[in-house]
Amino acid sequence: MPTLVLLRHGQSQWNLENRFTGWWDVDLSEKGIAEARDAGRMLADKGYEFDRCFTSLQTRAIRTLHLVLHELQSLWLPVAKDWRLNERHYGGLTGLNKQEMIDRVGAEQVKIWRRSFDIPPPPLAADSPYQLAGDRRYKGIAIPDTESLKDTIARVLPYYEAEIAPVLKRGERVMVSAHGNSLRALEKHLSNIADGDIVGLEIPTGQPIVYELNDDLSVKDRFYLSER
Amino acid sequence: MPTLVLLRHGQSQWNLENRFTGWWDVDLSEKGIAEARDAGRMLADKGYEFDRCFTSLQTRAIRTLHLVLHELQSLWLPVAKDWRLNERHYGGLTGLNKQEMIDRVGAEQVKIWRRSFDIPPPPLAADSPYQLAGDRRYKGIAIPDTESLKDTIARVLPYYEAEIAPVLKRGERVMVSAHGNSLRALEKHLSNIADGDIVGLEIPTGQPIVYELNDDLSVKDRFYLSER
Repeated sequence: MPTLVLLRHGQSQWNLENRFTGWWDVDLSEKGIAEARDAGRMLADKGYEFDRCFTSLQTRAIRTLHLVLHELQSLWLPVAKDWRLNERHYGGLTGLNKQEMIDRVGAEQVKIWRRSFDIPPPPLAADSPYQLAGDRRYKGIAIPDTESLKDTIARVLPYYEAEIAPVLKRGERVMVSAHGNSLRALEKHLSNIADGDIVGLEIPTGQPIVYELNDDLSVKDRFYLSER
Repeated sequence: MPTLVLLRHGQSQWNLENRFTGWWDVDLSEKGIAEARDAGRMLADKGYEFDRCFTSLQTRAIRTLHLVLHELQSLWLPVAKDWRLNERHYGGLTGLNKQEMIDRVGAEQVKIWRRSFDIPPPPLAADSPYQLAGDRRYKGIAIPDTESLKDTIARVLPYYEAEIAPVLKRGERVMVSAHGNSLRALEKHLSNIADGDIVGLEIPTGQPIVYELNDDLSVKDRFYLSER
């Protein structure tokens, strides 16, 4: 039976500081490391095994995956890493403390940027310290300077269809370690969630979400592992 | 310039206990974790960057690579894992304390098995607790029941020629995290070491060995990173 486990990375240092992160490569906090290990132990205790894993090009998701695979004694599994599973690019909000942002432009504007389906935040300034132009991991990739959730979905889903769905159709068991918004894209597609509703779906850090799928990849069951 | 860095995994729990390990999947010791981090910091301090990495299917080599890449802020690099970079299979010696083995069959016999180029140890017993027949990472692979160093070289070098050499010829900078004997195979090939001499080449744990190569992959320079 095709199985897809989605895992949002453990708490990062900027989750802890309540700052917009997006594509900036922030590492896990100590709590995030513990969350990842706990997720791995829970999967191991419940007898989960995987055939293949996918993750983003961002340290917090990759380390989360490695910590989980270590607990599962499965570090040997093939792991594909791709920018299309990266977090949504938060543009000019990158690096800002959420409270500072609210003080600056008002809670309503922040809520619009964070919560609207298709309105991106203002672009990242050319002189921002969070520019990624020189980051060689993105060589050859047109790095966005901001993204709406819709923009994020528009790069996540083609990757899912091209790389992940064919593997699931072969009956493999797949884990995807990624980010709040790249996982929203997958949940929206799999669970057929409306544009207006997906922005409200909160995905907790370090909590494996299990999709048991039919052969045509329609959803048989979807649950948080912690609730079974 | 094509650059190949070879890294033997940090100390494993069985290195510490002086037991023959081979294909048994023993994790790093605390010292081994520290060795791997130190190797990563040394590479970072000296400005090394990589384009692609290769490792075995064994936890101790994979974790060593991950610890190094974390220090290099390069966990996003593509990593290929393959059984052909595994440690030499020590057959019936697997799991034995080296001193116990000497007591049982004599130091001369142990030395022959460990140090001869083409005489393998006796095969792993069918009822050994170290049988890997049920280990799904080796599904579809004819798991050896013992190997000489010559046997090990006979699987490492075709992998090098097929997967690593083409990458180096494109000018990429490659790191291989592997094992004493799979690295001996690569050193024998690159440095053109005679059959009778290669068994005496000791490769320390956690010490990056740098090969600076010409375009045809002949060796321009070879050194321990700690000595530069």
